[in-house]
Amino acid sequence: MKIILIGASGTIGQAIDNELKERHEIIRVGHSSGDFQVDIRDAASIHRLFEQTGRFDALISATGKVHFGALAEMGEAQFAVGLADKLMGQVNLVLIGREFANDGASFTLTSGVLSDDPIRAGSSASMVNGALDSFVKSAAIELPRGLRINSVSPTVIEEALPSYGPFFRGYKAVPAAVAALAYAKSAEGAQTGQVYRVW
Amino acid sequence: MKIILIGASGTIGQAIDNELKERHEIIRVGHSSGDFQVDIRDAASIHRLFEQTGRFDALISATGKVHFGALAEMGEAQFAVGLADKLMGQVNLVLIGREFANDGASFTLTSGVLSDDPIRAGSSASMVNGALDSFVKSAAIELPRGLRINSVSPTVIEEALPSYGPFFRGYKAVPAAVAALAYAKSAEGAQTGQVYRVW
Repeated sequence: MKIILIGASGTIGQAIDNELKERHEIIRVGHSSGDFQVDIRDAASIHRLFEQTGRFDALISATGKVHFGALAEMGEAQFAVGLADKLMGQVNLVLIGREFANDGASFTLTSGVLSDDPIRAGSSASMVNGALDSFVKSAAIELPRGLRINSVSPTVIEEALPSYGPFFRGYKAVPAAVAALAYAKSAEGAQTGQVYRVW
Repeated sequence: MKIILIGASGTIGQAIDNELKERHEIIRVGHSSGDFQVDIRDAASIHRLFEQTGRFDALISATGKVHFGALAEMGEAQFAVGLADKLMGQVNLVLIGREFANDGASFTLTSGVLSDDPIRAGSSASMVNGALDSFVKSAAIELPRGLRINSVSPTVIEEALPSYGPFFRGYKAVPAAVAALAYAKSAEGAQTGQVYRVW
């Protein structure tokens, strides 16, 4: 398969790359690195990306920013960051990418454990992850031509503990290579409308 | 208690009013009717509302628009409607209203069944409802002063079947008065961070 991997240079992205590269052609995409670049907040940038990559069999997104901050200090502007980036950035990869997807192609988006198991400073991440998981369930029943869509909802990643550990005390971390399996299941399997919880 | 009811003239709003009005002082708010008016898409309008109502013990929101449409015809602009209105409109009622909330006051937002059980043309509603349910779980653990927050996630309402019935074939409708009980449980009970599913 020809797989477009957005966020290829990230901790999870690299593990997905390792998991899939021996079986598939991987097109690596980043914000500033990789074979191609994209700013997922910008629909025009996404459109240019797909014109450069051409048609594909799977799109995997392992990217997306949200603002982390105490709820007491969060207003509309702080929530807007995650809505424009991790939520609508990834959703726009689907809405724009579907025109470039081969029949039966899959989309795999990244949500996260905070939708269900919240932490301090994570209210925007919770909101966005919940939105993504429900979006894929709904989009799955309307996509044409056998197109599929799933999300992977990882808990905190072991390799990211040096920076994220203090926010996730008591959470059992998973190695990026374990999270990567869920992306492989989504892209290489046949399921759709699923939320793969890697918790 | 002094309860601010947003969306008081709607099908669910009227049932909430009926359930609560004999025990509490209800401040009825609508887009164009009621004791006060608000446009929840506009933070300035929300701020003016609370300056008019003064402090409160419970805020109940039974309002919020999303765009319903076939996924094939949905782009970023159609999803933006629900993000600005049903999602951030209701979240801004919390972010702004918390300054006017008495100690121990509660916020009750409205999500809906489509987060979990999708229909055609409902992808924006699914996204927004999932976002709201996860937001309340997260906000609940950070709100100060005993402030509480829950969501009510109703299925299709019996009284709304003449207009919504064709979209919800096979769904067991609930009377608005039954949905209203969940709002009473949220406002008059002591729980927080809950999603009350009325399915």
